[in-house]
Amino acid sequence: MVSADPLARVRIVGTGLIGTSIGLALREYGGRVTLVDISPTAAALARDLGAGELGDDSPDAPITLVVVAAPPDVVGGVVARELRAHATAVVTDVASVKAAVLRDVAALVSPQDLTRYVGSHPMAGRERSGAVAAQADLFDGRPWVVTPHATSDPAAVQSVEALARFVGSAVRRMAPEVHDEAVAAVSHVPQVAASLVAAALRDLPSEAVGLAGQGLRDVTRIAASNPMLWTQILAGNAAAVRVELTGLRDRLTQVVEALGTIDSGADVGSRAILAAAIADGNAGHARIPGKHGPSPQVFGVVAVVVPDEPGALARLFADIGEEQINLEDVRLEHGVGRLVGVAEVSVVPSAVEPLVQALRARGWTVHL
Amino acid sequence: MVSADPLARVRIVGTGLIGTSIGLALREYGGRVTLVDISPTAAALARDLGAGELGDDSPDAPITLVVVAAPPDVVGGVVARELRAHATAVVTDVASVKAAVLRDVAALVSPQDLTRYVGSHPMAGRERSGAVAAQADLFDGRPWVVTPHATSDPAAVQSVEALARFVGSAVRRMAPEVHDEAVAAVSHVPQVAASLVAAALRDLPSEAVGLAGQGLRDVTRIAASNPMLWTQILAGNAAAVRVELTGLRDRLTQVVEALGTIDSGADVGSRAILAAAIADGNAGHARIPGKHGPSPQVFGVVAVVVPDEPGALARLFADIGEEQINLEDVRLEHGVGRLVGVAEVSVVPSAVEPLVQALRARGWTVHL
Repeated sequence: MVSADPLARVRIVGTGLIGTSIGLALREYGGRVTLVDISPTAAALARDLGAGELGDDSPDAPITLVVVAAPPDVVGGVVARELRAHATAVVTDVASVKAAVLRDVAALVSPQDLTRYVGSHPMAGRERSGAVAAQADLFDGRPWVVTPHATSDPAAVQSVEALARFVGSAVRRMAPEVHDEAVAAVSHVPQVAASLVAAALRDLPSEAVGLAGQGLRDVTRIAASNPMLWTQILAGNAAAVRVELTGLRDRLTQVVEALGTIDSGADVGSRAILAAAIADGNAGHARIPGKHGPSPQVFGVVAVVVPDEPGALARLFADIGEEQINLEDVRLEHGVGRLVGVAEVSVVPSAVEPLVQALRARGWTVHL
Repeated sequence: MVSADPLARVRIVGTGLIGTSIGLALREYGGRVTLVDISPTAAALARDLGAGELGDDSPDAPITLVVVAAPPDVVGGVVARELRAHATAVVTDVASVKAAVLRDVAALVSPQDLTRYVGSHPMAGRERSGAVAAQADLFDGRPWVVTPHATSDPAAVQSVEALARFVGSAVRRMAPEVHDEAVAAVSHVPQVAASLVAAALRDLPSEAVGLAGQGLRDVTRIAASNPMLWTQILAGNAAAVRVELTGLRDRLTQVVEALGTIDSGADVGSRAILAAAIADGNAGHARIPGKHGPSPQVFGVVAVVVPDEPGALARLFADIGEEQINLEDVRLEHGVGRLVGVAEVSVVPSAVEPLVQALRARGWTVHL
């Protein structure tokens, strides 16, 4: 039932950031990609960007794989419709919650059709949304979770995994509930925490907000996220998010009570509660994989003072390149009202000393 | 009583990151800076880095300004000792809580001596600590809050403000309590939130932690902070932090209850609570000033695909330099297991189009 070439005819339903990026990433495959969206303008834009063709199924070349990239609260219904409309196609969706979608789909289609459905979740995104923000390399090196259910056809699972691998993702297979618990902890709870910390800034005096530093900026960066989308995501994963957030709320209550004891002067062991909260945070933070995947390498950081003028960074990187040292990461920070910035250059640890010596010899001011 | 040249003879007590950086920043002033630390090794290291001289007061050139850069829980006692030891000096401290320090100092010194004390708080720091991490430009463009009390000598306030301005900071004058409430919201609450979100990762299965993305990394970056230091900071600002954290806890409880209602299917208005939490977060986030000070300029971001090899970034920045376009910021992201990274280059909006065209003409793959 499942085609020998699972990506020969891919139909993408929903041409937002994810759907359009999948279309762009499939260009090099050489199959045929068709695009649909409830907004004809959005579909046409994705077509213009090169994500595929408009138009629909043709009887002589049936769809092999449907990718439903619609908003979370409608995705179950759309998946069901696609399963019925394309009787030999594998259907996947890319919603960021999986158990609720499976429940919706199972309630709407025959057990036979359900075997062709395999949920999935590419862990890729951007702060911007829509086809305009799409990138063919959006999925490069990112995890793509594939969530088979009890009656998924193994060949259908392989079709979805073939898509994920072709666009450059690292496939992770998980049960839908396991996926939902994982993203509750690593994605949904951080979103709620960031939003609530940011929300408290709304009524703060301007002079207080003016003291904000990089820490607050980092903690609240994702608080700029879309309320409509996130309401759907949180509601779609309500049970798992509730468990995680209840844990967070209880730990927060402990800290509040410890602070109350300290403030009242009746302090016995309260400082230990504060210290444990920060130390446990250290331990949890240390488990997060770096940018470079699940076994992060620790890099050394070298801070180089850079004049804030055209060509200065070029000279710096030319100097680094001539030393045959490979940069792993770089961040530029400016001092307000000063003529210098600082480039924080990450390299493998063994390259730190040679880099510092080489840069100093070439006249750069370097901080370790 | 206060010297005509407030920075002529500066004594820095505590040669960690902040104390040493102040010494480095004062080099260009041309006054005399002396360094002391309870650890002779730490003081000697700061001296070797160029932050000042070891050694003490001399009767012919009395200290004009003492800067106490000691840990929060001992700073009150050290300030009191310095006020008594240097009878004509202005004394400031740089602890990140102010009302508690003032209370401690006022309990330990005469009302007369208290007039020479003015608390302050440079809003600058790094993830690394100690003299080795010190930088002369640490305070560049950062706010430095000066917190006079009711009986501070106005000339003493001016001395501390002269220090802050000389090292490049933007002076903000606030009452100690106003400062403490402000930093509770913009610094201490984000720290607790980041630590608690990270702490929940401790016992998560590895496959779940493996799904972590940039959002989680940003939210929890400051969770790597020092437990000892943060216990002192939180305990020192217990009342204000408790008020803010209680508000956060109550909003979190609302979200937990809304999720419970949704999960049980008895959903009336619960989605509105979720949406309001995210939307309020949008509004609060929008108030945070950018890196470039209180009136942030908005920059355009151009994403350039860069081969992961020595010299590639140098070529990119050389090309940008030749176009006479000035970079405002740059971030490098790698795809795991791929041979390309993406450099996200920020430039003033008017430079985006010329930059994109120039880079494409030079053969770079560019995303907007």
